[in-house]
Amino acid sequence: MLDFDRYDRVRPIRWLGDRLSLLDQRKLPFTVEYLDCADSDAVAQAIRDLVVRGAPAIGIAAAWGAVLAGQGVEAADGGTALARLAPALDRLNAARPTAVNLMWALARVRRALAGAGADWRLVLEREARTIEAEDLAANRRMGALGAGLIAPGAGVLTHCNTGSLATAGFGTALGVIRAGVASGRIARVFAGETRPWLQGARLTVWELQQDGIPATLIADAAASHLMRSGQVQWVVVGADRICANGDTANKIGTYQLAIAARHHGLKFMVVAPSSTVDMATTRGEDIEIELRDPDELLGYGGQRTVAAGVTAWNPVFDVTPAGLIDAIVTEKGVIERPDPARMRAVFGD
Amino acid sequence: MLDFDRYDRVRPIRWLGDRLSLLDQRKLPFTVEYLDCADSDAVAQAIRDLVVRGAPAIGIAAAWGAVLAGQGVEAADGGTALARLAPALDRLNAARPTAVNLMWALARVRRALAGAGADWRLVLEREARTIEAEDLAANRRMGALGAGLIAPGAGVLTHCNTGSLATAGFGTALGVIRAGVASGRIARVFAGETRPWLQGARLTVWELQQDGIPATLIADAAASHLMRSGQVQWVVVGADRICANGDTANKIGTYQLAIAARHHGLKFMVVAPSSTVDMATTRGEDIEIELRDPDELLGYGGQRTVAAGVTAWNPVFDVTPAGLIDAIVTEKGVIERPDPARMRAVFGD
Repeated sequence: MLDFDRYDRVRPIRWLGDRLSLLDQRKLPFTVEYLDCADSDAVAQAIRDLVVRGAPAIGIAAAWGAVLAGQGVEAADGGTALARLAPALDRLNAARPTAVNLMWALARVRRALAGAGADWRLVLEREARTIEAEDLAANRRMGALGAGLIAPGAGVLTHCNTGSLATAGFGTALGVIRAGVASGRIARVFAGETRPWLQGARLTVWELQQDGIPATLIADAAASHLMRSGQVQWVVVGADRICANGDTANKIGTYQLAIAARHHGLKFMVVAPSSTVDMATTRGEDIEIELRDPDELLGYGGQRTVAAGVTAWNPVFDVTPAGLIDAIVTEKGVIERPDPARMRAVFGD
Repeated sequence: MLDFDRYDRVRPIRWLGDRLSLLDQRKLPFTVEYLDCADSDAVAQAIRDLVVRGAPAIGIAAAWGAVLAGQGVEAADGGTALARLAPALDRLNAARPTAVNLMWALARVRRALAGAGADWRLVLEREARTIEAEDLAANRRMGALGAGLIAPGAGVLTHCNTGSLATAGFGTALGVIRAGVASGRIARVFAGETRPWLQGARLTVWELQQDGIPATLIADAAASHLMRSGQVQWVVVGADRICANGDTANKIGTYQLAIAARHHGLKFMVVAPSSTVDMATTRGEDIEIELRDPDELLGYGGQRTVAAGVTAWNPVFDVTPAGLIDAIVTEKGVIERPDPARMRAVFGD
């Protein structure tokens, strides 16, 4: 049994009864500071501004945002409450377009509310707490499943941050890495810095450091050279949305890693809770890819590096076709060489 | 005939008779400032510190560094001068390990000196001037040859900076882009930002802007997503060393672009003067890859972004195997699908 207290110390989301306290991930790794959100619009703003990021964490934060919305509304039962909360829930839903977990969490909240009576506020709070607890349990389960696929002594490369910071705790891809390091299967961890927002450089290596797991940072552009050097055997990443055919949207750069892994005969693993699976989206081409402000590429941390007047193209996700993925790991099981039939077998229609 | 005055305004190296004035590329794009080097060791330091960078520019700067070394030495003829200059030339030679142009330029200087009489200082200066003039002429020739390979209406992606800033002027890969834009063949230019030193973000888009050529900046990790979008048909890059079999060392990330280009059925062009070709190096595995200070990856533009105690791996070049290269363009001609026989046909043994 993995010592979770040793290997999982960071928590990005704290519910304080009348407000939601979010670890401000824009300020990491040098300042560990929580931002308190007293209403649902503050939560939506925090999601939009990347105070909280990572597909599962966004879903959890939104569920707590719904609880806050409920605290500001008078209603006799859940049905009435749902009607009154609709605008606030819609604003939460619109905060980020690519991660399906956000919509999934809010749909769960809506369903729970619709069936609730006079105790709808309790129902709402219980639903948020359940979403959060289930996410943590799913991550621990995925950690064991994913690490089980990796032969002892392996090196792994990961991208972006998919750790405790991106979830209720333990992480998705980083959960597999935690479990693999703890069980001695993973011998070397490399993290791509993940421009433009540097989630790998700022968050992943910091988070792993909190748990005593050494990781080596590389430039995103050095991944193929690393693969050729023989130091890694697996690429392990998270997901923002997984389609019915296994096509996977994730942080920009993921697709490139999958192409390079295949070119070098290495394995490519996607780790995400089943809430990330969107069986209603047939294939990757149907996913809306979020384009963020080009300014994010024109400098870093308020310091401009690019001449005035230069334009940039800043898609922050890309789609990895199922054909480049060796395994999708969810808490419901592992889908090897994903295709529509194998996806349907686990997730239904 | 291309209007060179319009499409080539930037010059990184200025010889001032008793000192070498180098455009300090560490300060671009916001400060255009020349650093004067009064002796050869100052030139070696400037090469090491990336004041001047780009394989051809390094070779030219080193040749002028040799002229400066000559100004500080008494000798009756070139042979004696060569013996006295040897330590200074060795220090210039050791300033950067990967670019063969540096060694090539200094070997030319040595040969010229060895055969010189009492006018050896003039010979030395003439050699430096010739190396510089030949580089500019080679770039203009390569521009025409490379652009001729590109079908009208194409989009191109480039990496690092291979422009006027990296050469005597006009550039290698960026020379092809200049010629292609001027002749209307190239419709769209994209530049990868090129972590860690951001040559693409700081230098390439700035340099093209000086000549009125709009270019769109992307994250290095967005290249494959861009390729999939159909917006580019060619990847055009420079080289720091080309082996006898066509394997090519260039800025870290180049190899990844070549893999992705092949995956998408796009074309991949290497543009470099024949001084970059090293027929004495059989294949890419024999090239020493420069590892630079991990600190370059632990911050961004002088601002620290990574937690203390984190380690990084910072190889700044990689090797693209000849099999992934569609064309090597030199001033001596185009080598399509390079292999040892085709390379030998152009460059001898």
